[in-house]
Amino acid sequence: MNCILASTSTVYGEQYLAYIVDELAVLFTGVETILFIPYARPSGISYEAYTAIARKAFEAIDKKIVGIHEFETIEAAFSNTQGIFTGGGNTFVLVDALYRKEVLMPLKKVIQSGVPYLGTSAGSNICGLTMKTTNDMPIVYPPSFTTLGIVPFTINAHYVDPDPSPTHNGETRATRIQEYHVFNTPPVVGLREGSWLRVKDTTITLQGSLTARIFEQSKAPYEIASGSLLSTLY
Amino acid sequence: MNCILASTSTVYGEQYLAYIVDELAVLFTGVETILFIPYARPSGISYEAYTAIARKAFEAIDKKIVGIHEFETIEAAFSNTQGIFTGGGNTFVLVDALYRKEVLMPLKKVIQSGVPYLGTSAGSNICGLTMKTTNDMPIVYPPSFTTLGIVPFTINAHYVDPDPSPTHNGETRATRIQEYHVFNTPPVVGLREGSWLRVKDTTITLQGSLTARIFEQSKAPYEIASGSLLSTLY
Repeated sequence: MNCILASTSTVYGEQYLAYIVDELAVLFTGVETILFIPYARPSGISYEAYTAIARKAFEAIDKKIVGIHEFETIEAAFSNTQGIFTGGGNTFVLVDALYRKEVLMPLKKVIQSGVPYLGTSAGSNICGLTMKTTNDMPIVYPPSFTTLGIVPFTINAHYVDPDPSPTHNGETRATRIQEYHVFNTPPVVGLREGSWLRVKDTTITLQGSLTARIFEQSKAPYEIASGSLLSTLY
Repeated sequence: MNCILASTSTVYGEQYLAYIVDELAVLFTGVETILFIPYARPSGISYEAYTAIARKAFEAIDKKIVGIHEFETIEAAFSNTQGIFTGGGNTFVLVDALYRKEVLMPLKKVIQSGVPYLGTSAGSNICGLTMKTTNDMPIVYPPSFTTLGIVPFTINAHYVDPDPSPTHNGETRATRIQEYHVFNTPPVVGLREGSWLRVKDTTITLQGSLTARIFEQSKAPYEIASGSLLSTLY
């Protein structure tokens, strides 16, 4: 496997994918055309509009983008795929579409075969065992919360630390993840914006300048440094 | 029907239910014993621990609390029910339990028969048409997102306005609700902490000191004042 699973597409004050574009040039070395999966529809935009945004960003590194909806069949989309990018948006909408359009299994096989894959936000979440630590609103009911299992844990994208002076009674991110572990055993990786996981074969490394927060069942949460292997999690 | 659907159990700096206790004395006039539904398990606490918290709060107005799990059958729990309180926590956990324990339909019938009902947070969300505008993390997979439909819209509890100076790329509450309306037609009522809906027969009134934010499909969101009837929504 050969993946970048990023917390976010965009860091504050920068253009779409700009902070990670040098890494993407390496990930997609030798790739001419990248298959884009726009199913997560951020702000509800169309597949066409979302694909245009991805296309523009990849012009900077001379890669062509083709949307999966531009193919007549899913089989055609995945034949001879050189690289894949699943963009962020709503994870429920994304997972629902992956199941209903029967894309989940072909996508898993192609990633497992070593085709370079980029996920951002929801596109990273789906590489976990389940989507159970998404932050998104459940605006559609997907057939299952089980996802690709490319990494042996779940991802919490856009991870933020609890506000030190809360005046609001809504649960913090940390409390939500603590509740997750009452019902689920797999670890959770809280990826801050600007961080990504680099998956190469069976090795998973934290990259970017920030630490990540790891939540394991029945353990106090802890930080890992950039460059750490996530090998204690499996 | 005779319900209070509150955004939150607790406002900042106060004890559990303290801000609304005078209203609860009116709602539960003549009621000796209130059936408590602890299924939402905030922070993953047990049914027993959660029921003890509710019991303590209702001592202030001389009401006895009995947990639904203390009965041998669901039928026994709902026979001669004088009043009901569903506490907050995780809406996915609550809805999953309501389906799996076959409580959803008996609960709906009893509320529709006019038995006084209090919901806080997740306990209010379940009175909407669906749970699709919950803020909670999908830590379990319920059999459906369809809920009680006591009110003809969905509720967003703990509603907060977007941060005016965001440095974070995660979606705001308003963006999430906008995405909801790409896929769903029912209105959404954004209830701020300290607000509640008072349902009496077919009349629904916003109460508490704050305004609420209303989201309708294909319309700009707008505020309604405390005391407003929510009759434009149905």
